[in-house]
Amino acid sequence: LASSSTSKLRLGSSKRNWLTPENNSRLGPESLWLPGLSAVRAVSSPGGPTPPFTTLSVSQPATAVTHIELHRPEKRNAMNKAFWREMVECFTQIAEDPDCRVVVVSGAGDVFTAGIDLMDMASEVLQPEGDDMARTSWNMRRIIAKYQETFSVIERCPKPVVVAVQGACVGGGVDLITACDIRLCTQDAWFQVKEVDIGLAADVGTLQRLPKVIGSRSLVNELALTARKMYADEAKESGLVSRVFPDKEAMLAGALEMAGEIAGRSPVAVQGTKVNLIYSRDHSVAEGLNYMATWNMSMLQTEDVMKSAAASMEKKSPKTITFSKL
Amino acid sequence: LASSSTSKLRLGSSKRNWLTPENNSRLGPESLWLPGLSAVRAVSSPGGPTPPFTTLSVSQPATAVTHIELHRPEKRNAMNKAFWREMVECFTQIAEDPDCRVVVVSGAGDVFTAGIDLMDMASEVLQPEGDDMARTSWNMRRIIAKYQETFSVIERCPKPVVVAVQGACVGGGVDLITACDIRLCTQDAWFQVKEVDIGLAADVGTLQRLPKVIGSRSLVNELALTARKMYADEAKESGLVSRVFPDKEAMLAGALEMAGEIAGRSPVAVQGTKVNLIYSRDHSVAEGLNYMATWNMSMLQTEDVMKSAAASMEKKSPKTITFSKL
Amino acid sequence: LASSSTSKLRLGSSKRNWLTPENNSRLGPESLWLPGLSAVRAVSSPGGPTPPFTTLSVSQPATAVTHIELHRPEKRNAMNKAFWREMVECFTQIAEDPDCRVVVVSGAGDVFTAGIDLMDMASEVLQPEGDDMARTSWNMRRIIAKYQETFSVIERCPKPVVVAVQGACVGGGVDLITACDIRLCTQDAWFQVKEVDIGLAADVGTLQRLPKVIGSRSLVNELALTARKMYADEAKESGLVSRVFPDKEAMLAGALEMAGEIAGRSPVAVQGTKVNLIYSRDHSVAEGLNYMATWNMSMLQTEDVMKSAAASMEKKSPKTITFSKL
Amino acid sequence: LASSSTSKLRLGSSKRNWLTPENNSRLGPESLWLPGLSAVRAVSSPGGPTPPFTTLSVSQPATAVTHIELHRPEKRNAMNKAFWREMVECFTQIAEDPDCRVVVVSGAGDVFTAGIDLMDMASEVLQPEGDDMARTSWNMRRIIAKYQETFSVIERCPKPVVVAVQGACVGGGVDLITACDIRLCTQDAWFQVKEVDIGLAADVGTLQRLPKVIGSRSLVNELALTARKMYADEAKESGLVSRVFPDKEAMLAGALEMAGEIAGRSPVAVQGTKVNLIYSRDHSVAEGLNYMATWNMSMLQTEDVMKSAAASMEKKSPKTITFSKL
Amino acid sequence: LASSSTSKLRLGSSKRNWLTPENNSRLGPESLWLPGLSAVRAVSSPGGPTPPFTTLSVSQPATAVTHIELHRPEKRNAMNKAFWREMVECFTQIAEDPDCRVVVVSGAGDVFTAGIDLMDMASEVLQPEGDDMARTSWNMRRIIAKYQETFSVIERCPKPVVVAVQGACVGGGVDLITACDIRLCTQDAWFQVKEVDIGLAADVGTLQRLPKVIGSRSLVNELALTARKMYADEAKESGLVSRVFPDKEAMLAGALEMAGEIAGRSPVAVQGTKVNLIYSRDHSVAEGLNYMATWNMSMLQTEDVMKSAAASMEKKSPKTITFSKL
Amino acid sequence: LASSSTSKLRLGSSKRNWLTPENNSRLGPESLWLPGLSAVRAVSSPGGPTPPFTTLSVSQPATAVTHIELHRPEKRNAMNKAFWREMVECFTQIAEDPDCRVVVVSGAGDVFTAGIDLMDMASEVLQPEGDDMARTSWNMRRIIAKYQETFSVIERCPKPVVVAVQGACVGGGVDLITACDIRLCTQDAWFQVKEVDIGLAADVGTLQRLPKVIGSRSLVNELALTARKMYADEAKESGLVSRVFPDKEAMLAGALEMAGEIAGRSPVAVQGTKVNLIYSRDHSVAEGLNYMATWNMSMLQTEDVMKSAAASMEKKSPKTITFSKL
Repeated sequence: LASSSTSKLRLGSSKRNWLTPENNSRLGPESLWLPGLSAVRAVSSPGGPTPPFTTLSVSQPATAVTHIELHRPEKRNAMNKAFWREMVECFTQIAEDPDCRVVVVSGAGDVFTAGIDLMDMASEVLQPEGDDMARTSWNMRRIIAKYQETFSVIERCPKPVVVAVQGACVGGGVDLITACDIRLCTQDAWFQVKEVDIGLAADVGTLQRLPKVIGSRSLVNELALTARKMYADEAKESGLVSRVFPDKEAMLAGALEMAGEIAGRSPVAVQGTKVNLIYSRDHSVAEGLNYMATWNMSMLQTEDVMKSAAASMEKKSPKTITFSKL
Repeated sequence: LASSSTSKLRLGSSKRNWLTPENNSRLGPESLWLPGLSAVRAVSSPGGPTPPFTTLSVSQPATAVTHIELHRPEKRNAMNKAFWREMVECFTQIAEDPDCRVVVVSGAGDVFTAGIDLMDMASEVLQPEGDDMARTSWNMRRIIAKYQETFSVIERCPKPVVVAVQGACVGGGVDLITACDIRLCTQDAWFQVKEVDIGLAADVGTLQRLPKVIGSRSLVNELALTARKMYADEAKESGLVSRVFPDKEAMLAGALEMAGEIAGRSPVAVQGTKVNLIYSRDHSVAEGLNYMATWNMSMLQTEDVMKSAAASMEKKSPKTITFSKL
Repeated sequence: LASSSTSKLRLGSSKRNWLTPENNSRLGPESLWLPGLSAVRAVSSPGGPTPPFTTLSVSQPATAVTHIELHRPEKRNAMNKAFWREMVECFTQIAEDPDCRVVVVSGAGDVFTAGIDLMDMASEVLQPEGDDMARTSWNMRRIIAKYQETFSVIERCPKPVVVAVQGACVGGGVDLITACDIRLCTQDAWFQVKEVDIGLAADVGTLQRLPKVIGSRSLVNELALTARKMYADEAKESGLVSRVFPDKEAMLAGALEMAGEIAGRSPVAVQGTKVNLIYSRDHSVAEGLNYMATWNMSMLQTEDVMKSAAASMEKKSPKTITFSKL
Repeated sequence: LASSSTSKLRLGSSKRNWLTPENNSRLGPESLWLPGLSAVRAVSSPGGPTPPFTTLSVSQPATAVTHIELHRPEKRNAMNKAFWREMVECFTQIAEDPDCRVVVVSGAGDVFTAGIDLMDMASEVLQPEGDDMARTSWNMRRIIAKYQETFSVIERCPKPVVVAVQGACVGGGVDLITACDIRLCTQDAWFQVKEVDIGLAADVGTLQRLPKVIGSRSLVNELALTARKMYADEAKESGLVSRVFPDKEAMLAGALEMAGEIAGRSPVAVQGTKVNLIYSRDHSVAEGLNYMATWNMSMLQTEDVMKSAAASMEKKSPKTITFSKL
Repeated sequence: LASSSTSKLRLGSSKRNWLTPENNSRLGPESLWLPGLSAVRAVSSPGGPTPPFTTLSVSQPATAVTHIELHRPEKRNAMNKAFWREMVECFTQIAEDPDCRVVVVSGAGDVFTAGIDLMDMASEVLQPEGDDMARTSWNMRRIIAKYQETFSVIERCPKPVVVAVQGACVGGGVDLITACDIRLCTQDAWFQVKEVDIGLAADVGTLQRLPKVIGSRSLVNELALTARKMYADEAKESGLVSRVFPDKEAMLAGALEMAGEIAGRSPVAVQGTKVNLIYSRDHSVAEGLNYMATWNMSMLQTEDVMKSAAASMEKKSPKTITFSKL
Repeated sequence: LASSSTSKLRLGSSKRNWLTPENNSRLGPESLWLPGLSAVRAVSSPGGPTPPFTTLSVSQPATAVTHIELHRPEKRNAMNKAFWREMVECFTQIAEDPDCRVVVVSGAGDVFTAGIDLMDMASEVLQPEGDDMARTSWNMRRIIAKYQETFSVIERCPKPVVVAVQGACVGGGVDLITACDIRLCTQDAWFQVKEVDIGLAADVGTLQRLPKVIGSRSLVNELALTARKMYADEAKESGLVSRVFPDKEAMLAGALEMAGEIAGRSPVAVQGTKVNLIYSRDHSVAEGLNYMATWNMSMLQTEDVMKSAAASMEKKSPKTITFSKL
């Protein structure tokens, strides 16, 4: 497809060596806005991982939108050692990148992710070093904490993260998506809290976040204790995802459109909203209100409020406004 | 309609100058019980605000039921400076009024509320005073805290608050309804967390309460970050409202019937239930149980338990019992 | 039915005097695995309470599965004084019993439970002793704390508890089921937070746990403040139960099947999952992750992980593995 | 004494009808700075309460310093009904008064306070109304909460409060001083947690604040459980007071000098310090740091930092700087 | 000594088989009040443990005062398996015993306690059972939790506990005394957080309670990390103890006198004070005040307040009042 | 001095390029134990910063003891930009270094530290970038959080940190030392919470940690609000430091001796103690005990317990044991 190859080219140019110093700051002017479907096609093109990453493909399909694709489709995007490290690097950069206002995460190929790559990780996870039991446990705790960090960076990144799931989302995949802000899926998606099947309690976030993400505790317990699959309809009904799409292409288009909506609004408002929503989850309402007032005592003085209020009175979309970078 | 005019008269007599000292204590015997629909018609009659209020119409459609109507229909019940002040005054009185056991909040006209009245409030909210940045921020924080208080009084009032929403419920309206206890709406209602559109993170309660009110965190984030509208069906499905009615008249009848059910039960039981439900939201289960036991060690000694237990064994409704005022 | 009588016999043999020392440790080899429906029939057979219990019938319908039946069907399983005491004894034993990996709770007869047995308990609950008001309150608080403990033992028991509800589940019944982990019901089930009807705020768990069990706060408040009944469909939609079955027989079969799934997995994984899910409910995500890492630093070193991982790679069910007792 | 009468005159001019609207905003230029001892003499002069107060004498002995004197010396400054109401009114005004940067609290006459005025308050505290036990308790709880508020306003007032104690400080007096920020006393001062002697657990702050104010829990328990007196030396040693003075005159001079030090520094710095010290007391270190960073992200942008840093480099005292009002 | 033998007799009569049903309720009239020193001599007499206890000697030296003596002087009161179990039994009884209003804990012989009896306990603590590492850890956790409970019962017992330490107080002894309310010691007493010397972090309370018991965090850390001894003077200075006595006899006389002061006051006031002091330690001031108000809304209605207030106005000691049992 | 030059040589050999990969792992056998004073002289020798550090001198004066010296004596060890960055690097390494079991921090020259180096840091701290007020605040918050992290790494490092203060310890110095575990000082030391003098509330830890480090809240408030100096005696009396030494030489000898005591004990015990002491500070006692039990369920299984218990029974010092690295 011509349009596809064109967008592939564009995508190529917007793909960057994500860690080299010269790209550490700002994206160049070639970052063009790519509307709807062609962006999706670009995104799903077989471009492969973006160096220096080996498991992630990072691109900028539209202004201020960063797209991260889990990119080991031949391994069903299983999470190997490199993946855990790269996620931290990637989100640490994104958190500081003023050209990114929203993130979309998806998986290359037919499934979102098969979860942890047991083969690759067994040596570290299953056989930690240590001269005695206490020392082995000590090392094990550091390893677990390191893996927990992998998904906590998503939460600490002030830019909203939309995740789009097709096919399987297993084990570590559920840990990952519950750390994201908005969850979308295709009609053929299914979710499985797999850990109990391999003899362990899920320890990188699912048991902590899933109950705060969906409204039925009975369902959470059932999923975590039986490792049964949950399909798209039940995922929507229970509130795990807020939208279901017929297929991956439609879902990515929807994810990018939603990302565009978010990217088009004041970053001061958007990122302040994420920070405070997460703060509120972990605090009482009174605590949350106190923090919010202390936050907004300065943030309300942004010129974005004036610009936005003016646009609102003129019935213009906030997307017509140019906001300063944050 | 004759019945309408009749009930209007009755309503007139039950409307009171809410702040004069002589009414500060008890309602007189003219507070008649107005059954079902005629009460609703009375409530929705074009009576205008109840002095000294300029934005609220306060009446007593049935024994022990207080009805507060946002009453600036020509401005789509937009929240101006007077409204914020009057809400605090009104709920402070209600909290102490032994003749009120339950509150219904609704909006006059076609929409519940268009949210904050930017025109009226811009000067205060957008341009706080201050000799330097820190002093401006200091003042801003006090203003935010004051507005937060407006809706926190609803939560601190020990009487349950049922809110009934038709048409639009935008911005500050969502802050308001999430501080109420039970939410009802009409089929044509829609809800919008609007703040991000005017360049700010919602700071008078939505970000703190909405996630604790509905079960899908993905949906909460989507609503708060994109400012998209949510319609009645999704509101019901997600649990924001617990009932949807075909139109405003039916909704108000339903709200009053529900209020009547609540008002007919022991106020010691009802208000203790509200206080402890809110306490539990913000504490662990163990903390909540401890508080509950300490609360009920005296409250169980009410004669209401004896009266209610006796009625229950005789298969009588609790509404047949006369409970002392609280 | 022949099969019924057969299984009744078997059941007899697996019923034990639950408190005698010789049974305090391990179940003998006569604990046979009873497949699906015949187990259900056995369970619902009119065997009566298991001594020394007078209100509970305890059996082991399948390996590592303990079934507790509320067994006062002639009183609609109303909770009398004995019941409150026996629940604590029963779950204290179960918590320590290495032969139990999962618990199913159900009610004999047509209804799950009519709630508290007011006749039996009125003297204690309604007329506590005390020389003056403070002393009466002091005693009342101890009584409440004791009753709260009845259901908190369910939560502290590290083995998952599946509860299956048919017909009515009223008052204390709701306190009970919200302390269980997984809730199932029949199509004819209904739930009622009854306390407000007898003049008191529910004080043995409903107000603390129900809001953390279902996703709609408006619904929680409505149920607790009006004491209206909620039927199976709304219970499913709101997330109170995660599955609805056509009738009691199917439900018990389903409950036992689910229990079998859980019992077939590593007890280290399963019980660690329950412990951490409950910890997470009452803490922030960061707190939960810290506790999880500290928990798993030793638990991951179980041989169950190796066994399970090996089975998983060979595409075998975890139920084919023999796990050491815990 | 001549100087005494002179300063009485001055004091007269700086005494204001504290609640009349015209004084609601700013103090006039007649608020003169009164150095050291003569200020003290003025303060301790028998001027009587400042209308509309009947138990408090409020003056401004130095720029930006407000002095509140408990003023019922003939009743040993016992706390009657009027006192509890007036403290709230007084501190509510002070909290908003930009001309006040620091508060000194002391007691007229020979003793700081004999505590609650049982005669005046018995009817309310000992015989609350209520149709039954639950309703009486309900009213009692509101009364307690109201009295707790009396001292919590001291804590919520962002201006530091220095309290100076001579002679007796009994019962409610300990509740009061533990809510202040800095405690000073004379050599003849003694402190008594008296409540247990009149049959009740101290409920307006002592049991909550005293353990967070001094470092020996054994001592706190001893004082609260035996009602024994603690004298100045032990008060200093245990950290209840940070300074002991030989007599009242020296103490008031010292209190005013300390108040002058505080008033001479940036109010943005001083009040931000108080707010964050109190926040930190009730939160973990990590929580406190997060709140602090969010607070200072705007407060550090005050011009006071520039002014103060400049003075600091020039080795000038911060008291030489003119700071804008806050 | 004659007086000693006499008091031994008396003591014999007040010693009871602590667990037999007939003694489960009230003490008979033979419980004589033993004044000052002779009581002490009685207490320190070589009477041996009170059956069924083997490590504790329990007596009632004065009305409403229970004295518990660690009684294995030949083993320096080292804590063996029996001790841990008996402490729980003893305090569980005391918590419910209306004839006990205050507890004194001391150690027979020359030292308070040498800490854990490693010989007796090594098998359980050092070699827990378990088929694999996770199961061993699981069992270890239950053992630790059980030992923690031993001292937490002291804290949960609503009656104040005064502990009197002579000679050594090592390891588990520090865990014990930090769970008591008031700490006294002799001039020759020394304290040692010994655990680090045997290769473990103190896990039955010292690390949790010591920092909340004394005011110098640097000292706490030094003691816990170096296992150095702290002598009486530093213990007093740091606030660990609130009084130092010249020798054991004087200390016990002082402890009993203090216990008499506490026992002579309203048990509603005293026990409410302990409950709320402990609640406050673990909560913010605002939380503590809320709990306090809810507690006292009934407790203030005790007749003890009237009795005590009347005595207070008549300048009588509260010890002259007869309070109902609690 | 010969011994001094010798130890200087040794010290030279134990000084390493702290960040080069080859030194990233283990120290070589040349790390000799240097007894008492000569180690001190070595430490205080004018060796200068250890590359790559420019403000820190890092050495290993004894086995398993790391000594960090603030080393800009010509600038009174003022904290410049490099210092903040290097502290994080240094402690991040130390936290992972199995050859370090305890850390000593001191300052080169006559004063511990003059606090922040305003000249060097003014541009960043006083003039953060940002297109509008909200963006400037956003950046300011990131800068503050970064500086807070500088001292939080000390707390998160599981090895105990002993800090030794001579002369001045001003501003940022107080933030630093309150994040350490044990504080020592010389007789000529003084401490000053300086921030309020330069117009700001201390925001990198003092306001959060100081009140949890010393026992007198009145003193904390006085220090923070008036910026007055506190000298060694008051620092000792208030518990800020746990020991005072006559001069710097004696103090460093004492610090190293204490470090030796700590280093000679089981690292599993020592580091577990630090981790749990910090956890306990920020949690309730019940929370702390739960965490402790979960921690020790594996840590008690260390062979260090067996080794230490055996040594203890043989009356040997734990320092005679060889513990595996952690």
